[in-house]
Amino acid sequence: MPNDRLVNETSFHVRYAETDSMGVVHHAVYLVWFEEGRSAYIREHGWSYADIERAGYFLAAGDLNAKYRRAARYDQRITVKTWIEDVRSRTMTFGCEIIEAKTEAVLFEASLKLICLNASGEITRIPNAWMAWLSPQAGEA
Amino acid sequence: MPNDRLVNETSFHVRYAETDSMGVVHHAVYLVWFEEGRSAYIREHGWSYADIERAGYFLAAGDLNAKYRRAARYDQRITVKTWIEDVRSRTMTFGCEIIEAKTEAVLFEASLKLICLNASGEITRIPNAWMAWLSPQAGEA
Amino acid sequence: MPNDRLVNETSFHVRYAETDSMGVVHHAVYLVWFEEGRSAYIREHGWSYADIERAGYFLAAGDLNAKYRRAARYDQRITVKTWIEDVRSRTMTFGCEIIEAKTEAVLFEASLKLICLNASGEITRIPNAWMAWLSPQAGEA
Amino acid sequence: MPNDRLVNETSFHVRYAETDSMGVVHHAVYLVWFEEGRSAYIREHGWSYADIERAGYFLAAGDLNAKYRRAARYDQRITVKTWIEDVRSRTMTFGCEIIEAKTEAVLFEASLKLICLNASGEITRIPNAWMAWLSPQAGEA
Repeated sequence: MPNDRLVNETSFHVRYAETDSMGVVHHAVYLVWFEEGRSAYIREHGWSYADIERAGYFLAAGDLNAKYRRAARYDQRITVKTWIEDVRSRTMTFGCEIIEAKTEAVLFEASLKLICLNASGEITRIPNAWMAWLSPQAGEA
Repeated sequence: MPNDRLVNETSFHVRYAETDSMGVVHHAVYLVWFEEGRSAYIREHGWSYADIERAGYFLAAGDLNAKYRRAARYDQRITVKTWIEDVRSRTMTFGCEIIEAKTEAVLFEASLKLICLNASGEITRIPNAWMAWLSPQAGEA
Repeated sequence: MPNDRLVNETSFHVRYAETDSMGVVHHAVYLVWFEEGRSAYIREHGWSYADIERAGYFLAAGDLNAKYRRAARYDQRITVKTWIEDVRSRTMTFGCEIIEAKTEAVLFEASLKLICLNASGEITRIPNAWMAWLSPQAGEA
Repeated sequence: MPNDRLVNETSFHVRYAETDSMGVVHHAVYLVWFEEGRSAYIREHGWSYADIERAGYFLAAGDLNAKYRRAARYDQRITVKTWIEDVRSRTMTFGCEIIEAKTEAVLFEASLKLICLNASGEITRIPNAWMAWLSPQAGEA
């Protein structure tokens, strides 16, 4: 986890619906939690990803790298730590670390590159207004 | 299950992600299967619910009544039987029965009223072209 | 919503993954939120549904009645209000009302009967220790 | 996609519940489809992953690498191609390619390392009986 930039933390309990027959959280759920971490990151800055879509832009998933470390279980308190790893003209990469809040055991680590699309689904430059806001968050300013 | 009208049957295996810690399929998943039953029903008639949306209409969930009878488990073969219970000017009600294909044990029964909305989200009449097609399916013609 | 008994309130933001192509929250998600309301209800009393399972009991879904009132959208703040409607020797019924926190618009109302099962999946009496705790919550004491 | 080993293909329609506000399939859903591909792979060989669990073993997610290529939409026919990339004493790696069946456009590519656990959640050797079956599938025999 980087120490030179903003890291958002958001917490919630594991929902029963998020578990599977193995008695632990299903592995696809971590992507939903990571996404909620990105939502919380943007929300912390007074924006909403909904504003981005209303402005006619979408962030589509590109490359994903993830490591599953330990299993989470129903009703545990989870903390998602989310940061911006990199911003380019047409892409941005978020990183996350998901821990069990009580023991601070690391459950999951991942990075996901998002690609900026316009309303027609074409790859496009991230708007300047947004770029100006993003770059310092990435520790580049 | 009605014997006076068309009943669509669609089958698939229980996915691992659909189970929960209890070792059985999570109860919210049956709504997803019922919805897939409605998709298959429409598909069987050479339409797609996607066509309906492209024409500027949406079917929003209204009243739901459901009975959970028996639990489904990972990898079982499931059959969803879907029919139209009722069609009104602005609503239509689908019924379903979900069974385990091998034993034919009934797992779930439900009816869901859908409300026709226009692109502004207002309740609106079901288009005539569609109405003409739906009514006989409901056994009214 | 009853005014003679305990009502738990738990709040969270709508996750992006919970939306569908209609631009609103998918109707199956409300069952997941209702379930999280029941988890929060039990948690508020110092228990966890996980304790119940560790003691060898399960609560399986039985009859469900639900009304969808208005659509929720991504990033809205949601409040789930949950209470116990009824407790019998082998079943208990929870009620819920889900609102959009800012406008207090009612989105969803439902009641769900849960059936007490033992580890073999047989219907069984709700344990006394638990019964003693549940009944007053239902406003019966 | 490898041409020196068995590749399982399984197909289904995109469910409405799998889409999100962007009008396309949510990125976490591809992990559910990949998992269903692994289930189908095992099923094709007359086994079920359920048998593995009944024998007291679990396959837990480890490292995941994925590339999202194009978006899938509601009601499209999807084909998941699944194969074994590698088998070691305690881990096995599956690969997948997910395509839109009609156009054969590649939507998603991924590899996922699974770790063999015993009933106590400890990393353990893959049982010999299973190993004998797996290795040739990986094109090593």
